[in-house]
Amino acid sequence: MTKNLILLFTLLILWQCSFAQSQQTHATWIWYPGDFEIWLSNQMQNRRTDRGTFFPVFWKVDSHYPLVDFHKEFNISQPEEVSIYAEGNYNVKLDGKPFEGAPQKIIIPAGKHKINVKVFNQANVPAIYITGKTIFSDNSWLVTFEDKEWIDETGKTSDISATKWLNAGKWNFDYPVNPPSTFKLPVTPQNAVSKNGNLIDFGKETFGFVKLNGIRGTGNITLYYGESKEEALSVEGAVTLDRLSFQQPVKKDSVMPLSKAFRYVNVVTDGTIQVDSVTMLYEYADVKEKGSFRCSDEEINKIYDVAKYTFRLNTREFFIDGIKRDRWVWSGDAYQSYLMNYYLFFDNETVSRTMLALRGKDPVTGHINTIMDYSFYWFLGIYDYYLYTGDKDFIKQFYPRMQGLMEYCLGRRNKDGLMEGMPGDWIFIDWADKLSKKGEVSFEQLLLCRSLETMALCADITNEKTDATKYKQYAAELRTKLFSLYWNESKKALVHSRIDGRQTENVTRYANMFAIFFDYFNQQQKDDVKKSVLLNDSIQRITTPYMRFYELEALCAMGEQDYVLKEMKDYWGGMLKLGATSFWEEYKPSLKGAAHYAMYGREFGKSLCHAWGASPLYLLGKYYLGVKPTAPGYETYTIQPVLGGLQWMEGRVPTPKGEIAVKCSTKEITINTAEGIGTLRFRSTVKPVCKTAVIEKKDDCYELTLQPHQTYIVSYAAKK
Amino acid sequence: MTKNLILLFTLLILWQCSFAQSQQTHATWIWYPGDFEIWLSNQMQNRRTDRGTFFPVFWKVDSHYPLVDFHKEFNISQPEEVSIYAEGNYNVKLDGKPFEGAPQKIIIPAGKHKINVKVFNQANVPAIYITGKTIFSDNSWLVTFEDKEWIDETGKTSDISATKWLNAGKWNFDYPVNPPSTFKLPVTPQNAVSKNGNLIDFGKETFGFVKLNGIRGTGNITLYYGESKEEALSVEGAVTLDRLSFQQPVKKDSVMPLSKAFRYVNVVTDGTIQVDSVTMLYEYADVKEKGSFRCSDEEINKIYDVAKYTFRLNTREFFIDGIKRDRWVWSGDAYQSYLMNYYLFFDNETVSRTMLALRGKDPVTGHINTIMDYSFYWFLGIYDYYLYTGDKDFIKQFYPRMQGLMEYCLGRRNKDGLMEGMPGDWIFIDWADKLSKKGEVSFEQLLLCRSLETMALCADITNEKTDATKYKQYAAELRTKLFSLYWNESKKALVHSRIDGRQTENVTRYANMFAIFFDYFNQQQKDDVKKSVLLNDSIQRITTPYMRFYELEALCAMGEQDYVLKEMKDYWGGMLKLGATSFWEEYKPSLKGAAHYAMYGREFGKSLCHAWGASPLYLLGKYYLGVKPTAPGYETYTIQPVLGGLQWMEGRVPTPKGEIAVKCSTKEITINTAEGIGTLRFRSTVKPVCKTAVIEKKDDCYELTLQPHQTYIVSYAAKK
Repeated sequence: MTKNLILLFTLLILWQCSFAQSQQTHATWIWYPGDFEIWLSNQMQNRRTDRGTFFPVFWKVDSHYPLVDFHKEFNISQPEEVSIYAEGNYNVKLDGKPFEGAPQKIIIPAGKHKINVKVFNQANVPAIYITGKTIFSDNSWLVTFEDKEWIDETGKTSDISATKWLNAGKWNFDYPVNPPSTFKLPVTPQNAVSKNGNLIDFGKETFGFVKLNGIRGTGNITLYYGESKEEALSVEGAVTLDRLSFQQPVKKDSVMPLSKAFRYVNVVTDGTIQVDSVTMLYEYADVKEKGSFRCSDEEINKIYDVAKYTFRLNTREFFIDGIKRDRWVWSGDAYQSYLMNYYLFFDNETVSRTMLALRGKDPVTGHINTIMDYSFYWFLGIYDYYLYTGDKDFIKQFYPRMQGLMEYCLGRRNKDGLMEGMPGDWIFIDWADKLSKKGEVSFEQLLLCRSLETMALCADITNEKTDATKYKQYAAELRTKLFSLYWNESKKALVHSRIDGRQTENVTRYANMFAIFFDYFNQQQKDDVKKSVLLNDSIQRITTPYMRFYELEALCAMGEQDYVLKEMKDYWGGMLKLGATSFWEEYKPSLKGAAHYAMYGREFGKSLCHAWGASPLYLLGKYYLGVKPTAPGYETYTIQPVLGGLQWMEGRVPTPKGEIAVKCSTKEITINTAEGIGTLRFRSTVKPVCKTAVIEKKDDCYELTLQPHQTYIVSYAAKK
Repeated sequence: MTKNLILLFTLLILWQCSFAQSQQTHATWIWYPGDFEIWLSNQMQNRRTDRGTFFPVFWKVDSHYPLVDFHKEFNISQPEEVSIYAEGNYNVKLDGKPFEGAPQKIIIPAGKHKINVKVFNQANVPAIYITGKTIFSDNSWLVTFEDKEWIDETGKTSDISATKWLNAGKWNFDYPVNPPSTFKLPVTPQNAVSKNGNLIDFGKETFGFVKLNGIRGTGNITLYYGESKEEALSVEGAVTLDRLSFQQPVKKDSVMPLSKAFRYVNVVTDGTIQVDSVTMLYEYADVKEKGSFRCSDEEINKIYDVAKYTFRLNTREFFIDGIKRDRWVWSGDAYQSYLMNYYLFFDNETVSRTMLALRGKDPVTGHINTIMDYSFYWFLGIYDYYLYTGDKDFIKQFYPRMQGLMEYCLGRRNKDGLMEGMPGDWIFIDWADKLSKKGEVSFEQLLLCRSLETMALCADITNEKTDATKYKQYAAELRTKLFSLYWNESKKALVHSRIDGRQTENVTRYANMFAIFFDYFNQQQKDDVKKSVLLNDSIQRITTPYMRFYELEALCAMGEQDYVLKEMKDYWGGMLKLGATSFWEEYKPSLKGAAHYAMYGREFGKSLCHAWGASPLYLLGKYYLGVKPTAPGYETYTIQPVLGGLQWMEGRVPTPKGEIAVKCSTKEITINTAEGIGTLRFRSTVKPVCKTAVIEKKDDCYELTLQPHQTYIVSYAAKK
C-alpha cells in the first residue's frame, strides 16, 4: 500500500468516525427501506454449496421494487449545484418538471423546491446518492414504489395523496463510487499455522476464501474443507469442497470464488499439479466490540472469548445460523443473536437488517423459514429491539409488515383459537428425540401470546388505536387460556400439548422455561416449576445450545447463577476440553471422538461454529454483570450484579449512548454509568456504603439510583 | 446473409411450423408462469423516453420470483442422457438426491424417476431447458416458488404436500442458445422514401431504430422524431429525440439505442458532422394475419388496411396503447386490442401475456394502471379470452390472481356496496370535457357487475363452488341495483351517477351503450336507449376512437350497421382525408391543420398511431361478416352477415382451429367452415336456397346449421 493510500484510508476512517456520533450531515446512498436488505440476503443465502452443489433456501424469496421514486423538499437561500448518482435508469424532476436526459449535475435555484428522482433497476436495488452544499441524500428523503399520479383532463399531472411515502433506507454507503450493489464484506490475508502433507491447518475455526499460491502444472485440484481434521480428510464426507482444473505452464495464484468455513483444508492434486502454499482471505463483518467480560475463573474467560469468536464468525451481512451450513438467516437462530449482540456489538443495523430480510415482502405465503415458532421469534425480536434501542422509527416504518405477518398467523388458528400445525407448517421447537409436534403445542401458544403483546406495543407506538385494543384483548385472552388449558396442578407445570381437546401427560421444558422469563408465572408457580421441571432430571434433557440458552436464562431469572455457572463450565467447558475453537450446533457429552461431528444422518453434518452456541455472552452480561434496560433505549435500566460463585468480575455493557462499566467483587461494586437513569440492586450481608449516593433497602435487596455519566463505588459483602 | 444461414433459417422455420399445429413434442425454455411476462413488461415499459428523459410508469412494478423449483416425474424404458440448460445458478436432483455441481448432462436410469431443477436468478427470470430422447422441458413440468420441504428429526428431507405447484410457463424459446433473457423483437431494414434538407420521410407511420450511415466529422447530431412533419421540425415540441456526439475522423454507422415511433426524422447537426444517409431497422412482432376483409367500398377497404397497420404497430411484446407515447400496457386499451386480435391475428399468447403483465403480483395495492375501470376491463378481457379461445388452463392456473384483484375491488365498495373513487383511484372512463367522476358512477357499477359474472364463470371452471355461489349472488344483486338506482324512466336511460345517494340529472352514453352489448336491457329499454341516448345529439358526443369503439358496437348490436358504416366513413375516413397513415388517439373533425396533433396541453402531445384507433377490424369482423363464438373456443358459433349498405363483402375470421370464410353479396352467401357447429342467420326477402343444408325460418330470420369443414352456398335476396 502506498503512503497516499494509507493517508486516504486514515482520512476516510476519521471522516466516518466524526459522523458516527452526530446527526448525519453528509450524503449517503439511499433506497426503498428493506429492499437492499432483501436483495443482499438473496445474494448471501444463495452462496451456500453442499458437496459443490448449489444449495438454496426452500421458502419464498422476495425481490426489491424495481421502480422507485425518491423525493425531498428543500428551502435554500442560495442557488446550489447538486450532483446526482443513481443505480439504474433514472430521471430527475424539479418541482414536477423533468430535466432532459439523466443529468449528473443540476442547479437548484434559491427558494423552496421539491426534487424527485425516479429509478428503475431490475437486477439491483434502485438507489441514489445526491450531494450538494446543503442538499444531500439521507434517510430524511421519502420514497415510494407506487407514486400514483394522474393526468387530469387538462393534461396536468397531479400527485394523488394516497401515495404511501416511507423514509428512505440507508446504511453506510457514503461514497458515490461505492454504490450498494458493489457491497462485499472486507477481507484480510491470513496464513495457515501448520501443514501436514496435503492437510493445511489454520489453527482455529475460520471463514473466508482459500488462496492457492504458485499453482503450476496440468491436472485437477480438489479442496476438501473441514471444521475438523477428520472432515477435511474425508473425501466422501467433507460437506464443502472445491474442484478446479489447471493447465498452467507458469505459476499462478487462485482465490476460490466462494468463502467457506473451515479450520483444515485438504488439498488433493493429480497430474503434474504443484502448489507453493495455501493461505486465505479472512472475510468478516466490520462490527466493533463494545461489550466485555472478565472474571476470576479462567475457564469462564476462555468460554467468553470463544463465544465471542463464534458469534463474530456468525455475524456477517446478517446474523446467520452457522458458517459451514446453512449460512442462512433463520429467525430462531437470529433471535438469539440479537440478544447476544446487545451485550457485545450493539450493532443495531445488523439486527434491523436481519429482521427485514427475514420478513421479506407481502403477501405472506408461509411462516418465516416455514417454521411456526420462527414467525413468533420475529415478533419477539422486535420487542427486544425496541426495548434495547428505543428505535421508534423502525416500528413506525415497518408496522404494516408486522401486521401482515400477524394476520397471517392469526388466520391459521384452529377452531379453538389455538395454533396447530397446518399443511406447510413446520413446528420446530428444538432438535430433540421424540419431541411431539402433534395437536396444539403449549410452547407455540406461549410464543403467540408474547407476539400479540408485541403487536399491541407497536400498534400503540404507531398510533393504530383499534389494532392496539384488538391485540391487547387477544393477548389477554390467550394468556388466560394458556393456564386454563395447559397448567396441570398435580404436575405443577404447563403440559407440552393438547391433542383432540385434551391435555397430554407429557411435560417438557420449553413452555415452562419461557413462561419464567416472560414473567407469566406467579411466584408460587415459578418456585414449583423450578423444582418440577427445570431441576427435575426425569424431564427430557436439552442437548442443543439453542434451547440451553433459554433454559439457563430461566434459571438465571430465578436467581440460580451459581448452578448456571457450573452448567456453563460443564457444557461449554466440555466442548473446549474436546478442542473446540468455536461453539457447536449441538453437544452431547456422552459421545466419543469423531462421533461428535455427526448430525442429520451425516458423518460431518454438524456445524462446529454455530451462533446459538455463543449464549454465554448474553447470560454473563444480563445475569452476572446484571445490566438490562427497563424502558426503551435504556432510558431507565437496572444493574443487578450476581457473582454466582465467582470471586470477581468486570465488564462493559453497551447502550444506545455509551457503555455501562460494572466491576464487582465480593466486597465492592464499581459502576460507571452512561446516559439514562439506572437502579443498582444487590444483596449484602452488611450495611453497604457509597460516598456519592443514598442506598435504600428494598425487601431483601439494597438499591441505589444511578445518574448519567457518574462513577459509583459501593462497599458491601456479597451473600453466598 | 450467406447461403448456409438462409438454409438454417429455413430449416428452423419449417421446424417451428411443424410443431405449431401438433401436441408439443420438443423441448422449450420454461419458467414460473407469469414471471417472464412481468419481467418482459418491465423491460418494455421502462424504454419510454420523453424529450430524451426516462419516463417510466407510475404504478407498482413487480418482479419474477428469483428462486424457483421445477420438477417432473418420468417413466422411461431405457436409460437416457439428458442435457440441462438454465438461466441462473442451479442444482439438479434425481429422486431427491442432488448431483454434484451444476451438471450439464445427466444420465437417467430406466424406470420411474423424478427430476427437480432449482434455479436462482435475481436479474432475469429463472428458466430451464431440458432435452433428452423422451424427456424434455415443456409446460407439463410443474413449478413452485416455495418448495416447502422440511428436515425431520432423523435428518430426512421431506416434501410438504402444501406446496403449490403450477404448470410451467413457456412461449416459443425452443433453442437452448436463445434463452428468455435474450428476447428481442425482430427487425428488418427499411429505407426512407424522400429527403428534404434535414427532414427524412419514411412515407408512413413506422417504428424502429433509426440508423445513421456514414457519420464523419466532429460535433453533435440531434434527431427530432415526428409522427407529423410539423412535429419533426419543431425543435422545442418534438416529443421524442436523440442527442449524440461524435469525433469521427473515419466513417461510422450508428444505430439508435431505443426504438421510436415516427414518420419523419429531422436530423440536425453542428460542427463538421456529415451523414451519408438515414435508414431504419423496422421492429415488429412476428404475428401472422389470419383474419381479412374486403368489400365493395374502397374507402372501407382503405380504413380496414390502415386499421390493420395501426394495430400491427401497436402489437408488440404486448398490446400497447400507442407507439409514440406511452408505449405502456394500459388495461382499457389492451382490452380493445384483445377483441381486435380475435378478428385479425388470433394470437392468444399476446393476449394472455398482456393480461399477466397487467395483473402483476400480489399484494394488489392499487387498481390496474391506477384506474378503477381498468381493473374491471381486466376481468372483461378474461371473459372474452375464454369465450374466444376456450383456454380453461389459463383460468385454472391464474384463478388466484383473479380472485386477489376482485377481493381488492370488493374491499373498496362504499357503505351502499357501490364503487366510488377512494384516494388513489383514478376514474377514467374517457377523455371527455367536463366528465364528472364524482359520487357513484353508473358505468363503474356496470363494469363491476360484468366482472363479477366473469368471476362466477371462472370459479365454476376452477371448481371453486363457494366462490361461484358468492360471485353469482353479488352479480345478481348488483344488476338489480343498477336498474333500481340508475334507470330513469322519464329520461329512458341509465343516468351517469349518484351523488349523496341521489340520481344526478346527467345522462352520458357510457353505461347505456355497454348495457346494450352486455345484454342487460330488455328489448323495450334497448329501443328506448337507442333513441334517447345513442342517436340523440343532445347527449355529449364521443370524440375518442376509444369510446367510439363501444358506441359503434352498441349500434351494431342494435342492427344499425348502415348507420355505423356511414359513421366509419365519416370518422376514420376523415382521418384518412387528413393524410393519416395510421389511426389516432383522438379525432375532432372541427379542428384545422396542425391543431389536430395537440393533446394534453402539448403541441404534439397526441399519439397518431393508437391501438384503439383500429376498431373497424373488430366491427367489420363481428358485426358485418358477423362471426362470433357462442360457446367457449368456437365450439358453437353464429354467422350473421350484415352488408350495412355494401354491395358485397368477403373475409376470414380465425378460430382456435382454422378460419371461417364468409362471402356475402346482396344475392348470395358463401361460407367455408372450420371446426365447431355454427349457425348461419340472415334475412331475405325471398325464400333462400341452399343445396347442401336445410334452411329454417326463425322469427324474421332464416337459419342454417353449419357442420365442420364444409362449404355452404345460399342464394337469397338481402333486405335493404
